[in-house]
Amino acid sequence: MKAIEGGITSPLGWKATGVRSGIKKDKLDLAVLYSETPARTALAYTQNKARAAPIEVMMRDDPQTLRAFVINSGNANALTGPKGMEDAESMRTLTAQLLNIKPVEVGVASTGVIGRYLPMDMVTKGITEAVKQLERGSEANISAAKAIMTTDTKMKTVACQITLSDGTLATIGGIAKGSGMISPAMKALHATTLSFVTTDARLDKPIGAKWQAVMDSSFNVINVDGDQSTNDISAFMANGAAGGMPADDQPEFWEAVMWVAKWLAKAVVIDGEGATKLIEVHVTGAKDDNEARAAARSIVASNLVKAAIFGADPNFGRILAALGNSGSEFDISKVRLRLSNGKTVALFGNGIPLITPGSAEEQVASAILHEKRMVVELDLGIGNGAGEAWGCDLSYEYVKINASYTT
Amino acid sequence: MKAIEGGITSPLGWKATGVRSGIKKDKLDLAVLYSETPARTALAYTQNKARAAPIEVMMRDDPQTLRAFVINSGNANALTGPKGMEDAESMRTLTAQLLNIKPVEVGVASTGVIGRYLPMDMVTKGITEAVKQLERGSEANISAAKAIMTTDTKMKTVACQITLSDGTLATIGGIAKGSGMISPAMKALHATTLSFVTTDARLDKPIGAKWQAVMDSSFNVINVDGDQSTNDISAFMANGAAGGMPADDQPEFWEAVMWVAKWLAKAVVIDGEGATKLIEVHVTGAKDDNEARAAARSIVASNLVKAAIFGADPNFGRILAALGNSGSEFDISKVRLRLSNGKTVALFGNGIPLITPGSAEEQVASAILHEKRMVVELDLGIGNGAGEAWGCDLSYEYVKINASYTT
Repeated sequence: MKAIEGGITSPLGWKATGVRSGIKKDKLDLAVLYSETPARTALAYTQNKARAAPIEVMMRDDPQTLRAFVINSGNANALTGPKGMEDAESMRTLTAQLLNIKPVEVGVASTGVIGRYLPMDMVTKGITEAVKQLERGSEANISAAKAIMTTDTKMKTVACQITLSDGTLATIGGIAKGSGMISPAMKALHATTLSFVTTDARLDKPIGAKWQAVMDSSFNVINVDGDQSTNDISAFMANGAAGGMPADDQPEFWEAVMWVAKWLAKAVVIDGEGATKLIEVHVTGAKDDNEARAAARSIVASNLVKAAIFGADPNFGRILAALGNSGSEFDISKVRLRLSNGKTVALFGNGIPLITPGSAEEQVASAILHEKRMVVELDLGIGNGAGEAWGCDLSYEYVKINASYTT
Repeated sequence: MKAIEGGITSPLGWKATGVRSGIKKDKLDLAVLYSETPARTALAYTQNKARAAPIEVMMRDDPQTLRAFVINSGNANALTGPKGMEDAESMRTLTAQLLNIKPVEVGVASTGVIGRYLPMDMVTKGITEAVKQLERGSEANISAAKAIMTTDTKMKTVACQITLSDGTLATIGGIAKGSGMISPAMKALHATTLSFVTTDARLDKPIGAKWQAVMDSSFNVINVDGDQSTNDISAFMANGAAGGMPADDQPEFWEAVMWVAKWLAKAVVIDGEGATKLIEVHVTGAKDDNEARAAARSIVASNLVKAAIFGADPNFGRILAALGNSGSEFDISKVRLRLSNGKTVALFGNGIPLITPGSAEEQVASAILHEKRMVVELDLGIGNGAGEAWGCDLSYEYVKINASYTT
């Protein structure tokens, strides 16, 4: 697996673009992705029961094959009733007409403010323009990545290549957006944020379960603020343009897909609203992998842990308090808690605190907490389950961004 | 039921005091409560599996009768291993010796920083002094209420009286502490924060179920930050010193107890870390009361809702997104969402937004959101279940307090 400069159009047969339709005042806000041939598709959706109109449309049809995706930012088309459904359908129909494909071959997604109608005159103009501008290459990768952003401060775009066992070179590209309203859920067919991963690999078998496994170890273990969005959707689309053998049973291929998804998910966390630090929680010694992941997620979801890390306060008791709230089993007399980043410091073990106020160990902990990324290593002491979660700290800036989102 | 000036020693036969033991630099940090006669007791404990030593001690014995309670602030005696257990036992034993009662008749609770050993020399000195100073009256009420505070900015103390059907005047008093690490749980025997309610009423029957019902409509529906503490305990103690008939089957008596508990729980929310506003969520039309409460709790627990209300941003979509994450059933085409505070404004109904940007209605919503308290009224449109939850907004100050708690 080799990371390459590139993005969503790096795989063969894919085009994309992002345009400014006017939904946002002066930023790119509408993207179209397009495959020259039908692409085998897996979609994962939010578990939030207050679903946006485009999510309703996609869940109803749940297409296994797509040729295109139309995505707008700046307006979520959520909680918009029958008119919202019509608008989502119109986005699909118009994109299909312009591309001379069927509406059911077009995916639709929206992200932005909830509870407002889409300005369909602008959307129509934007789609028309976007379809004209579809292309391959770095401009397409960048404009598409930017057009799906909301409060994101950085675009998230990545690509890699893998050589299959018959020598076929397969390329995988991805874009994602997401900054706030980000919290993982574990159920099947769940995604957080918007993310789109394309490949030119040939896949002959159903890919839903494999994509879900990728989700569960990437987008489903990140947390910015505990709020699951009304609009989350995650798409994986394989058009086979690379030719050669099917990649279905090539573990290296799926590892490469996982690498892309993890890269995008971590990029979302690092760019979390107001985030100043990336917190990785690695849990081992759990009853099983699910309990390990639940413990890790509870820790990265704790406001108190997040605020303490923002302030570089080595208040490790909050980490164990969050563990205690996770529902996961542990043996407190065997729990081991360490903090690492190059250096490692043991915080808790044998049922007792291993650092004291003012000690040299506390100073090491404090130094690690001042870094931009750190790993919380937690062994629950009862089994072989392991799992991870990634989150960011809670800063003044998070509050500021979300105190005035629509005003 | 009549509210009176008073507190924890207003009921007959109760004494209390708060002293400065030295755990905190220059504040009261140790309280003792004492009843001249044995008091029938109900205790509710945190559901966090990482339990503090005093919680372990109390859950192990789960006494049905108590004569005294010793409580320290500034140090949670949590995650402190065998020495922590010894220290909690010592607090009980010393208090019992000095009061000439049995250790099992003494309750023990701690609150403060997690993961540090108690300075037992100071604790011993403090208990010795506190027992000497036990008294009734406003000084006792105030010093006890202050000695259990952590990041609280205001003491929480309340009292009321109720005349039973035989003419007996029963008094109920309460104190509570709590500001951060506050999130409700619904299971039996769960409490959030520390709270102590005393009465001189005579109670002859088991009171655990009644106290749990009070908890579930008061302390268990509040939320500051979604983090459940390692140290939560809530005690209700009735010593019968008022004489007269038993109050077990007097609904007015239990209504008065509920009033005290709700008063204290709301006081905790209003004094939540960094809180500037009280948010009451009233849910109706749910499948049942549990689902109504779950929906209400999901809304007051949402960081995005809390930050929007801090900024007086009428971003009502976040309220419905939080509903969607609650797991509770609703019919979006029948959901009605209103915001009120004297004035009322409809935000969502018939499946569509009822306010638009810049409209007169949005201005009313914005005006309400600038108030210090507001009610979110949400009807789920499918049944007769009703429930409430109360929370506070998420402010810069919350982050500031928790970014430097131990440093």
